[in-house]
Amino acid sequence: MQEAIASFDFVEYLDRSRTLVENALDASLGPEKPVKLRDSMRYSLLAGGKRLRPILCLAACELAGGEVEKALPTAVALEMIHTMSLIHDDLPSMDNDDLRRGRPTNHKVYGDAVAILAGDALLTRAFEMVSLRTKGVSSERLLKVVGELSLVAGAPGLVGGQVVDLDCEGKEVDLETLEYIHLHKTGALLKACVTCGALIGGADERLLSALSVYARGIGLAFQIIDDILDVTASSEILGKTAGKDLIADKTTYPKLLGLDESRRRADDLVAEAKNALEPWSKNSKPLLALADYITSRDR
Amino acid sequence: MQEAIASFDFVEYLDRSRTLVENALDASLGPEKPVKLRDSMRYSLLAGGKRLRPILCLAACELAGGEVEKALPTAVALEMIHTMSLIHDDLPSMDNDDLRRGRPTNHKVYGDAVAILAGDALLTRAFEMVSLRTKGVSSERLLKVVGELSLVAGAPGLVGGQVVDLDCEGKEVDLETLEYIHLHKTGALLKACVTCGALIGGADERLLSALSVYARGIGLAFQIIDDILDVTASSEILGKTAGKDLIADKTTYPKLLGLDESRRRADDLVAEAKNALEPWSKNSKPLLALADYITSRDR
Repeated sequence: MQEAIASFDFVEYLDRSRTLVENALDASLGPEKPVKLRDSMRYSLLAGGKRLRPILCLAACELAGGEVEKALPTAVALEMIHTMSLIHDDLPSMDNDDLRRGRPTNHKVYGDAVAILAGDALLTRAFEMVSLRTKGVSSERLLKVVGELSLVAGAPGLVGGQVVDLDCEGKEVDLETLEYIHLHKTGALLKACVTCGALIGGADERLLSALSVYARGIGLAFQIIDDILDVTASSEILGKTAGKDLIADKTTYPKLLGLDESRRRADDLVAEAKNALEPWSKNSKPLLALADYITSRDR
Repeated sequence: MQEAIASFDFVEYLDRSRTLVENALDASLGPEKPVKLRDSMRYSLLAGGKRLRPILCLAACELAGGEVEKALPTAVALEMIHTMSLIHDDLPSMDNDDLRRGRPTNHKVYGDAVAILAGDALLTRAFEMVSLRTKGVSSERLLKVVGELSLVAGAPGLVGGQVVDLDCEGKEVDLETLEYIHLHKTGALLKACVTCGALIGGADERLLSALSVYARGIGLAFQIIDDILDVTASSEILGKTAGKDLIADKTTYPKLLGLDESRRRADDLVAEAKNALEPWSKNSKPLLALADYITSRDR
C-alpha cells in the first residue's frame, strides 16, 4: 500500500481538483440580483482556502465508483455551507472576528445585515445546488444528500456546535465538551463531505460506515491542528487573528493536553482514519493522502 | 359557486387546519440539544399567528387530490422558513424590531447570536422536514419541493427581497420597486406554499400555473393589507410596533396610492386570484375562502 501511495502524485491531484472546484464555485453565483448580495456571497465563497471539503466530497464519490462531475454541485454546496458558517460565526454578536483568510471579514466589508443575509442565501443556495443543479443522479440519491446537508448544517451539526461553543467562552471546559464542540462544528461537516460524495457515487452501507470512521478521525485531527496553529503561527501566515482563542479564553487542545500530546493525538487520529479505508486500498489514495495533508498543513 | 362557498364552513375548516398545523409544529422540535437553541427556535415557531402559509400548503395539496397528512411536514417547513425570515429581519442590524406577535422579538429574549443561529437552524430544519420527515411521497416530488424551497428562501426570494428592502429605507421608491420587494418578501413564499402543496398532491402543469396566478394575487393583496393595517391599527391589535414603516420612512401602498385606492387594489387582486381557480371550482372552496380571509383580517 505504501508503494501505491508513493506513486500517486498528490500535488497534481490537489491542483486538478482545486481547479475543478474553483471553476464550479465561480459558476454557482452567476450574474444575479441584488448585486450587493451577490457580491457579498462571492466575496466569501471565492476567498480561496484549501477547498478541503469539496475535494473530500469528490474523492469519496470516486472511491465509491462515481463520476466526479456528478458530485461537483454537491461539493459546491458543502463549501457554501462551510462559508456561511464562517460568515455568521465571524459576526460581532458571535466571535467578532475582523480577519478571515487574510482579508476583512464579510460584515466588515458589507455590514452586519448583508453579511447575515449572504450567509442565509449561501445556505439556501447549497440546497439549490443539490436539488436543481445536479444532472444525471437519481432523485433518491439526491434526496439522501439533501437529508445529510439538512442535518449537518443545522441544530444537530454546525449550529448546535456553535451555540455550545459560544456558551463555553470564558468557562472551564473538559475534553468531552471540547470534542462535542469540534465534532459538531468541524467533524460533522467533514463527515457529510465524504458521505454525500459517496452517496452520489453509489456507495454501499459498508463503505459509508468506513468513511464515517475515516471522517471522524480526520475531523478531530483537523481541529487539533487548528488549535495548535492558533498558538504557534502568526496572524500573517494564518490569515486570521492568531491567539484569538486564548484571548477569548477558549478551551483548546494545547491548553488541555500540551503541544506535544496534542500533536501525538492528531497523528493517532489520522492513522485510525486511514486504517478504516484499508479494504479499499486500491482506490483510496486521494483520501489517504488528504488525511496526511491535514496534519502537515501550516495554515 | 357562490352557493357552494356559502355552505362551506370556513371557520370550522380554519380551526381544524390550525390544530393540525400547531400539533405538527410542536412535534417538529422535540427534546433536543442544545436546549437554549431549541428554546429559541420554539419561542418563535410556536408564537401563534394565523398559520396562513402552512394552511395554504395543505389546501393546495387537497385541491390537487393529495392527502393532507403527506403535506404536513412541508407545511411545517414553510412556516419554519417564514419564521426564520422574521427572526433575522427583526435583528438590530436590520429592522431593529422589539415586538413581534405581541411578544419581545427573539433576539430581545435570547440575544443576537442565538437569534441568528435559531434562524439558521429553522431554515435548515425546513429541508430536513421535507427530505427526512415526509412519508409516502416519491423522491421525485420531494426533490422538486426542496428545489422550490431553495429558491424561495434564498437570493431569488426572501433574502433578495430583504436586501432591496433595506436598501430602500429612507429613499423615494416607486410602485415597481415596492412590488418587487413584496413579490420577493411575501409573494414568493405564498406562491411556494401552494406550489409545494400542489406538487405533493400530484398537480399537473395546468393547475400549477393557475395556482401561481392565485398566489401572486393573494401575495400582493396580503402586503397591501399589511401596509394599510400598519397605518390604521394600534400596536395592541397588531402585536408589533405600529406605524414603524412610516417612522422608518418606508414606502408603502397607502403612502403611494392613498388608503381607499390601496384597499380597492387589494380587492381587485383577490378577485383575480379567485378567478384563476374557476376551472377547479368544485374543490377550491378552502383556497377561495382563504383569499377572502386575507383581505378581511384585522391584524
